Amino acid sequence: MLTLSTDFGSPYPAAMKGVILQATDTRLVDISHDFPRQDVRATAFWLREVLPYFPPAVHCVVVDPGVGTDRAALVVRVGEHAIVAPDNGVCLPVARELAGEGDVIEVFEIEYDTPDSATFHGRDVFAPTAAAVHETGVGSLQDTASLARADDYVDLTFPDPTVSETGASGEILVVDGFGNVITNVPGDAVTGVFGQQVRINGEPVQVQRTYAAVPTGQRLVTVGSHGNVELAVNQGRGDEAFHVGPGDRVELSY
Amino acid sequence: MLTLSTDFGSPYPAAMKGVILQATDTRLVDISHDFPRQDVRATAFWLREVLPYFPPAVHCVVVDPGVGTDRAALVVRVGEHAIVAPDNGVCLPVARELAGEGDVIEVFEIEYDTPDSATFHGRDVFAPTAAAVHETGVGSLQDTASLARADDYVDLTFPDPTVSETGASGEILVVDGFGNVITNVPGDAVTGVFGQQVRINGEPVQVQRTYAAVPTGQRLVTVGSHGNVELAVNQGRGDEAFHVGPGDRVELSY
Amino acid sequence: MLTLSTDFGSPYPAAMKGVILQATDTRLVDISHDFPRQDVRATAFWLREVLPYFPPAVHCVVVDPGVGTDRAALVVRVGEHAIVAPDNGVCLPVARELAGEGDVIEVFEIEYDTPDSATFHGRDVFAPTAAAVHETGVGSLQDTASLARADDYVDLTFPDPTVSETGASGEILVVDGFGNVITNVPGDAVTGVFGQQVRINGEPVQVQRTYAAVPTGQRLVTVGSHGNVELAVNQGRGDEAFHVGPGDRVELSY
Repeated sequence: MLTLSTDFGSPYPAAMKGVILQATDTRLVDISHDFPRQDVRATAFWLREVLPYFPPAVHCVVVDPGVGTDRAALVVRVGEHAIVAPDNGVCLPVARELAGEGDVIEVFEIEYDTPDSATFHGRDVFAPTAAAVHETGVGSLQDTASLARADDYVDLTFPDPTVSETGASGEILVVDGFGNVITNVPGDAVTGVFGQQVRINGEPVQVQRTYAAVPTGQRLVTVGSHGNVELAVNQGRGDEAFHVGPGDRVELSY
Repeated sequence: MLTLSTDFGSPYPAAMKGVILQATDTRLVDISHDFPRQDVRATAFWLREVLPYFPPAVHCVVVDPGVGTDRAALVVRVGEHAIVAPDNGVCLPVARELAGEGDVIEVFEIEYDTPDSATFHGRDVFAPTAAAVHETGVGSLQDTASLARADDYVDLTFPDPTVSETGASGEILVVDGFGNVITNVPGDAVTGVFGQQVRINGEPVQVQRTYAAVPTGQRLVTVGSHGNVELAVNQGRGDEAFHVGPGDRVELSY
Repeated sequence: MLTLSTDFGSPYPAAMKGVILQATDTRLVDISHDFPRQDVRATAFWLREVLPYFPPAVHCVVVDPGVGTDRAALVVRVGEHAIVAPDNGVCLPVARELAGEGDVIEVFEIEYDTPDSATFHGRDVFAPTAAAVHETGVGSLQDTASLARADDYVDLTFPDPTVSETGASGEILVVDGFGNVITNVPGDAVTGVFGQQVRINGEPVQVQRTYAAVPTGQRLVTVGSHGNVELAVNQGRGDEAFHVGPGDRVELSY
């Protein structure tokens, strides 16, 4: 199985699929081609949320603002998964999430010939590498001539929140397509106060387990499917109602 | 074969696919993940138009404004098809459409453990159930321990139009992505007057078999691919030109 | 393998897939369903860029402003590929690109019964024909009763640029989803001046091999993945920054 994650929209990913299908007849699964454009951090968040639900696979990830520069191209192996991605940190959070008990994260650098085009390494570097990794087998990467172990690569981490007895102080990580505002505050900061009110950046808001527990159009604080505190509106957009976006601070007080 | 229909956009459906692919290696087909957000009625319409073209399959449908509440989760069996969906009526119109001569619509309620997350039953309830139904086989649902026959479930029907010798009175059901306005008036109300004019809400409009039969940008009345009367603009948006939307009345007079 | 290219958005392509899957269990690959609406020329460009990366396949293409009129429906065979498409020129540029040494482009007209619906030949004509071509085999089209050789069909070509020692004069072909402006001027008009300035419609702009070689938000001239001169903005939209769109002239001078 080979999954594809890009910010390319349409139709560029199809060229990647063509290249891959020249080399393998494995199943292809689109994770998304609508990741926020050139937003390495948001993509890293979503990959961490989604890829762990998959059986062992090769994951081809191309959100790559540095395309054509001298940034490296990587294959990251963890357990029975391999992630092929530019060296910008996009795949490190999910690699840590995929790592089971005793699993080591191994990083290889892809030695590739510079393609004619400097603007579409998704098609010319990452797609053929992902297909080759799939055909070689994730277990044999260390014997692949075009891969060299890399010691020095770009990492990416999400900020830690501060949780206390009076509340929590954190950051907005991403906003999803529904407008739900996903914070880095762990859900258990509010699971004890379902049905009650907390203050979000000073304003009172109800905490509820489900969106539908408040009237349509009303704001709520809930725990999202990622397990974090989420700012939402029942059948509406939380980002607009709370006037916040990625990177903004969120102060929660009981 | 297993189809997926949601209003989740991207990337949430990928998590559902991961869950499903842990349990089955059957073919997955995306019907759409862009159904109008939390619009049970429009989704019910589109499923009725699209799913009957498919060979026997398990259809996983998640447009679910009541996620996390005590609304039931259903498996509906009709012929060799099974539809896994929340109990909000979304799958009943298509079930009636799928029912062949002598087919009975059977409804089962899914007995599921409450997942940790109350906001993503697509991933935590419907996806694993759809995969399990596929692996068990649509013919064996009555023997599945986690399914109980349901007598009481939410139905959904579309309003009937009034057709007379002088015209028809109906309702706008949905607007498609092109802006074509789909009514509940049967197409044969206008198949006898192709090339002539009728009045739509009092204004004269040409009836034509094809969009291209009128100049670019001009309004027309036609019969859509669903067999109903459609209000359209050649290479333009009918909803804007006719100033109508879902739920609005449409009065057609010869 | 069978690929699908339409401007239908969602969910209409799913009905086409249902029809196809009634007839074949081959792999389906979506090229795009978001080609610019009823834009035969832009679709022709993108097909030419993408389909040549695919292994031999049947390609079903439906961008069809003339749906339901008496325009013909075609199967175009070239090498081991077949393209099923309306007779509006959309598949001729890619057919020429797919033609290898000694390959001939053969055009067949589909003899089809007029479907009840005049508005969805994608579902009622092109999908079943594509499935039938796949099952018959691309090598046996000449023996297929419902196909007749066509001598007279609509062609489509892109304009040739004028390249001289002082620059080039060309046209904007399409704008991609990133806002990158793709011209018909061959990339080698600028590969000798990377790092230098040229004038685009009179204004000085840097030529760079990669987007990231200029500061975020700054305009550049580069060579796109298609091999042509592209007007772009690093992490921004070239079409907005250069105030140009498809069909506009572009004058490049050293």
